[in-house]
Amino acid sequence: MKNLEVLFFDVLGTVVDRRGSIAKEAETFLTQHAAAGIDAGEFADAWVGRYDRSVEGVRSGNRPFVTLDDLNLENLNDTLWAFGIAPDKVPPKEVQHLNRAWHRLQPWPDAVAGISRLKERFIVAPLSDGHTRLMVDVAKHGGLPWDTVLGADIPRAYKPMPQVYLHACELLDVEPQNAMLIAAHDYDLDAARKCGLKTGYVTRDNASDPSKAANAVVPSDWDCRATDLLGMADLLLKGRT
Amino acid sequence: MKNLEVLFFDVLGTVVDRRGSIAKEAETFLTQHAAAGIDAGEFADAWVGRYDRSVEGVRSGNRPFVTLDDLNLENLNDTLWAFGIAPDKVPPKEVQHLNRAWHRLQPWPDAVAGISRLKERFIVAPLSDGHTRLMVDVAKHGGLPWDTVLGADIPRAYKPMPQVYLHACELLDVEPQNAMLIAAHDYDLDAARKCGLKTGYVTRDNASDPSKAANAVVPSDWDCRATDLLGMADLLLKGRT
Repeated sequence: MKNLEVLFFDVLGTVVDRRGSIAKEAETFLTQHAAAGIDAGEFADAWVGRYDRSVEGVRSGNRPFVTLDDLNLENLNDTLWAFGIAPDKVPPKEVQHLNRAWHRLQPWPDAVAGISRLKERFIVAPLSDGHTRLMVDVAKHGGLPWDTVLGADIPRAYKPMPQVYLHACELLDVEPQNAMLIAAHDYDLDAARKCGLKTGYVTRDNASDPSKAANAVVPSDWDCRATDLLGMADLLLKGRT
Repeated sequence: MKNLEVLFFDVLGTVVDRRGSIAKEAETFLTQHAAAGIDAGEFADAWVGRYDRSVEGVRSGNRPFVTLDDLNLENLNDTLWAFGIAPDKVPPKEVQHLNRAWHRLQPWPDAVAGISRLKERFIVAPLSDGHTRLMVDVAKHGGLPWDTVLGADIPRAYKPMPQVYLHACELLDVEPQNAMLIAAHDYDLDAARKCGLKTGYVTRDNASDPSKAANAVVPSDWDCRATDLLGMADLLLKGRT
C-alpha cells in the first residue's frame, strides 16, 4: 500500500445518493403532472432498475456506445408508460429536465470532506459509468474536488469491462497495483481487482439499489473497508504525512 | 457569447511559465554537474526549441502517438550532448528528475485567481499537448482548480490537429460555438477557430518562445483579448451574474 498514488471512485451510489436524489426530483415531477398518487421511490426504483439491462446492450457489443443521457431517457420514457403517463403528453423540456436529474445527484454527507482529505495525499478521480459532462456537472453541483474526471465516454465502455480500469490507469500513468478503486458495489471491486488494482469497500445503503440486481457478486475480503469516505481517509492516511 | 459554457485553456506558456520554470530547474542541474558556465536560459531554449519538431513526427503520422515525457526525454538527451554533457555519464535518476520539470511548471501569478473566478460561471479545463498525468501533476503542484483535465493522450493527437478541439467539445457535450479556447499562441487560436470555437488571446512573454517558431500564424482579430487571466475574467464575466 505504501506506493499507492491514485484513488479512483465509483460515483453512482458510492459518492452520491443516486436513488434518493432521483426520487426527490421524481416527486416534484409527479406532483406537477397530477400523478402525486404514484410513490416517487417506486418510480425511481423502476427507472434505475432498467439501468443495468440497458447498459448490458453496450457491454455485450449489441449496440454501439451511447452515453447515460441517452440510455436514461429511453428508460425514463418506458418508466413513464409503465406508470400510466404518456411521455408524449408531457412537454419535452420537462421530460428532459427530469432526465437531467442525473447531472444534479447529491453527494452523501461525508463525500466532499472525505475526498478533500484524500486529495491532499493522492490523485483523486471518479471512474464512473457516467460520461465526462455528467460527472463534471455532478462535481460542480455538489462541490466534489476531483483532480480530473474520467467518464465512460473516454474508453467508450461500461464497468465491469476491464478496459475501463486499465485505460484509467494508463491515462494517469500508474501501475494498477499503485491505484485503488473505492466503491460500494462488490461487482465493481471484483472487476478492478482482476485488473490488478487495490480495492476499498464503502458501506452505503445499497441493499435495495435495483440497478445492481444483475451484478451480484459474493462479498469478498477487500483490501480496505470503511463505513464512509471519512473512515476511508482515516485508514488510507494513517501513518502518512 | 451569451451561450458560452466551456472554457478550454492552452497551458504551456499560457497558464504556466514553461520557459522560466525549466530554466530554473536547468540551472540547479547544471550547477550540480559542474556545468555552471552554461547559461540555463540558453539551455532551456535549446531543449524547448526541439519540442515542435519532435511533436511534428506524431502530427504528420510518421510515428505513433507518444507522450511528452518520451519526447521531452529524447530532446533532453540531445540537448545535453549539444552542450557537451554526455547523458550516460549522469545518474539516470537525475536526468529523469530534470525531465519531470515539465510536471512542476509554475503558474503565472494571475492564473489561479483568474481561473478560479471563471470557474464560478464556466466549465474550465486545460486543453494541452501535455498528457493527462502531466496536466494533473502541474495542477496539483500549482493549485490550478480545473473542473477536469483533457490531456493529449485522450485523442492521442497534438495541436493544431482538429480532432484535439473537436473531441474535447464532444467529451464536454458542448457545441463548438459555445466553447472558447484561451491561449497565448496565434496558431492554436487559429486552429480552434477553424473548428468553430470562440477565441480568447492572452498576452504572455512568448516573443522568444523557441517552441513556436515553426507555428507562426499572423496575429488575428480574436473574439477577446486581455493582458492576463484576471483581465480575461473581467471581460467574460461582465454583465453575467
